[in-house]
Amino acid sequence: MNDLSLAWRADIAAVGGLLADRSLSAVELTDTMLERIAAIDPTVQAFVTVLDRSAREQAAAADAEIASGGYRGPLHGIPIAIKDIYNTAGVETTCCSQVRRGHVPDSDATVVRKLKEAGAVVLGKVSTHEFAFGFDSEPTRNPWNPDHIPSGSSGGSGAALAAGLCFAATGSDTGGSIRAPAAANGVVGIKPTYGRVSKHGVAALSWSLDHAGPMARTPRDLAILLTIMAGHDPLDTDSKHVAVEDYCAALTGDVRGLRMGVPSGYFTDDVTPAVGEAFAAATAHFGELGATLVPVNVDFLDPALDAMMAIAMAEAAAYHRDAMARTPHLFGAETRSLLDAGTLMSASTYLNAQRVRAAIKDCFRQALRDVDVLLTPTQPRTAMKVGQTVTHIGSREESVFEVSARFCAPFNLSGLPAVSVPCGWCPDGLPIGLQIVGKPFDEAIVLRVADAHQNTTPFRHRYPALAN
Amino acid sequence: MNDLSLAWRADIAAVGGLLADRSLSAVELTDTMLERIAAIDPTVQAFVTVLDRSAREQAAAADAEIASGGYRGPLHGIPIAIKDIYNTAGVETTCCSQVRRGHVPDSDATVVRKLKEAGAVVLGKVSTHEFAFGFDSEPTRNPWNPDHIPSGSSGGSGAALAAGLCFAATGSDTGGSIRAPAAANGVVGIKPTYGRVSKHGVAALSWSLDHAGPMARTPRDLAILLTIMAGHDPLDTDSKHVAVEDYCAALTGDVRGLRMGVPSGYFTDDVTPAVGEAFAAATAHFGELGATLVPVNVDFLDPALDAMMAIAMAEAAAYHRDAMARTPHLFGAETRSLLDAGTLMSASTYLNAQRVRAAIKDCFRQALRDVDVLLTPTQPRTAMKVGQTVTHIGSREESVFEVSARFCAPFNLSGLPAVSVPCGWCPDGLPIGLQIVGKPFDEAIVLRVADAHQNTTPFRHRYPALAN
Repeated sequence: MNDLSLAWRADIAAVGGLLADRSLSAVELTDTMLERIAAIDPTVQAFVTVLDRSAREQAAAADAEIASGGYRGPLHGIPIAIKDIYNTAGVETTCCSQVRRGHVPDSDATVVRKLKEAGAVVLGKVSTHEFAFGFDSEPTRNPWNPDHIPSGSSGGSGAALAAGLCFAATGSDTGGSIRAPAAANGVVGIKPTYGRVSKHGVAALSWSLDHAGPMARTPRDLAILLTIMAGHDPLDTDSKHVAVEDYCAALTGDVRGLRMGVPSGYFTDDVTPAVGEAFAAATAHFGELGATLVPVNVDFLDPALDAMMAIAMAEAAAYHRDAMARTPHLFGAETRSLLDAGTLMSASTYLNAQRVRAAIKDCFRQALRDVDVLLTPTQPRTAMKVGQTVTHIGSREESVFEVSARFCAPFNLSGLPAVSVPCGWCPDGLPIGLQIVGKPFDEAIVLRVADAHQNTTPFRHRYPALAN
Repeated sequence: MNDLSLAWRADIAAVGGLLADRSLSAVELTDTMLERIAAIDPTVQAFVTVLDRSAREQAAAADAEIASGGYRGPLHGIPIAIKDIYNTAGVETTCCSQVRRGHVPDSDATVVRKLKEAGAVVLGKVSTHEFAFGFDSEPTRNPWNPDHIPSGSSGGSGAALAAGLCFAATGSDTGGSIRAPAAANGVVGIKPTYGRVSKHGVAALSWSLDHAGPMARTPRDLAILLTIMAGHDPLDTDSKHVAVEDYCAALTGDVRGLRMGVPSGYFTDDVTPAVGEAFAAATAHFGELGATLVPVNVDFLDPALDAMMAIAMAEAAAYHRDAMARTPHLFGAETRSLLDAGTLMSASTYLNAQRVRAAIKDCFRQALRDVDVLLTPTQPRTAMKVGQTVTHIGSREESVFEVSARFCAPFNLSGLPAVSVPCGWCPDGLPIGLQIVGKPFDEAIVLRVADAHQNTTPFRHRYPALAN
């Protein structure tokens, strides 16, 4: 990189090299990001808290440590953003809700602690849809077109990455909340296998569906982040004892011989023409790279979205029961009505949704037996307009919730790892996402396929005009 | 054994030796049991189906195989009974409900298949409280006093064993349904760790609380049975991949140096004087045998019974939803009212019960960190009278459900392995049970302690007058 003022554009591996050999200081890099936030974030509105002083202090500490030979690894000195539902010690953590206004945790979420221990510089907290229960992420805007939403609930993370305001961000995903904003903002995000990444210190939305995970600009950056974030945490009872791989080592660029499942029906019937074309091109491209494309029947998914919503609404209502009793007026109107509906749900409805879920999980086990990954579009369409409440795709009218969750939620129900990577940009400039799904704890292959895609298509990471 | 006509009194190890060396034929032994059933079961009413012809055929096949050198092991030729909620191929399986009248499964429950493969001779099906949802087990009577219930829901299994009508039986336990009838009938039963024994082909009552397990006359017989019944089953999604031990090898008779937790409060405040004395004597006896007694605080159990009931009612209502919609009149009045109540329960109530359960599980992990086993009475009192609906212990008035479940249910919530073994007989002739609880998958130590108890106290297995 000749012009260090363009370091903000680089990926973590590249800028990490500059920090490691001290061609660039973490303080310079952090200052650049803080200046960019000051200049661009008034339009994007991704950050809810900017930690100017603390970020510079962390960066200075990183520089001092690197100078004294204590380089910690690829995240050392890298400026990142934390979704506001992750606890941050001493820093207000509100889940973008009036209910938690002024709430300052004593300790970091496990993932935040791990990222800090790896040397990352926390620039600040980024927005989420209130308590992660939706896809609008107000007031954040989509950097590709500020008339559009960044999707959500990790909308702040996706928009901040797209606008070049941070190198990585944390996300959380209950029905698509990492993958939908990754697709909407032209960045990447992985919902790891259920139990792969600790949720300790991350506010629950629906504990049996919630997943924590990283968002970044490239699959290689995701691999760096996941290698640090993954692993068993005794503080999270859902956390699993499964060995963590070096996900970077898995990125061979080679997909020859891989068997890739290509479903029809559920994932292809109701999508916009642009999404349909981009998805067809992506699958055909993998065929040209030497993968074997295998038709996969996913007709069992028809009840998936209803089951996911029933589970999420009931668990969210149970989680928020005390706050709803004490201070209902502090919840936003949309969240309150979802929680009210969840409170009225019967245990039978909830349990039957969990039984549907168990059946879907079993069907996926069968359906994926013969393939290494499954390919789907991440979303049926590009990001909605701000304030838009319904969308029409062909003869289908649906809500923001439905259109945003229907391709993602099956993998919250099943707990399977799923990444979203850009596979096209519409003529109107909005990005399109490709979803790559793997078998349980096979994040390595999912990232390998995503990385191969990005490095062999015209859809490498790029920036919107607003970022320049 | 000099008088082979008394072979029915022996334990599995002893009678198995006679079968193995062909001093006794399986056909003779099976005929003895069938004659005993014909003579005694009209009073006890434990059997709902007696498989005379099939049992003799199975026995003849066992004899032929043993004669030709094909001895399969300790269960070969041993007559057993199967609780009527276990599927048996070609044999009516009704869960003692009109709802399933005439229902004949195509295949055996996994556990039944394993027992048959080990060479056991299935004498027939024994009664359960309707769908295992209660402790009365009508019309079965307690062989120690037919004016009393055998407890339940595995009341048929307990009564058949006590009356000497079989050498072993299967049970299932959602809130005490193996341990309560083991205690009430002076026999033994183990609720293994959740996931230890397959539930495939066993009708669900409350899937997150249900456990399948063996009942027998001695801890050594339980060890023989559990060694065969335990192990991962791909057909049961709750089944765990944990290696199965040879539980017989674990019965060293030695408890010296073991740390035994002795709780007060929850398990000792509201018991009859006879139960209190028997429990105190049992714990003191372990001290004399060289165990270290450690006080354990279980104050966290106050909400346990309510949580168990909420979970059981909600899950049972979800499981039976279709049948309740189609044929509500075929359920017994008590079952129907429990299912109706479960249907009305809110998802929030259910989920909060599951959250209480998670907290209790965690408290047990802490409380048992420093001990090898926990000792409690199995039941606060001896078996209730037939038709009795409430009982008074001190100033406490409680239902059959409450008195039967409150010492057992904590270990359905926690999934911990728990055995019941006799620790006394009341002056009125009714037996008293001691419950021994272990850490997850530590069935070996639980059986070792139970075996040591039985072999060093006056409370070895014995038969009621009715059996002779």
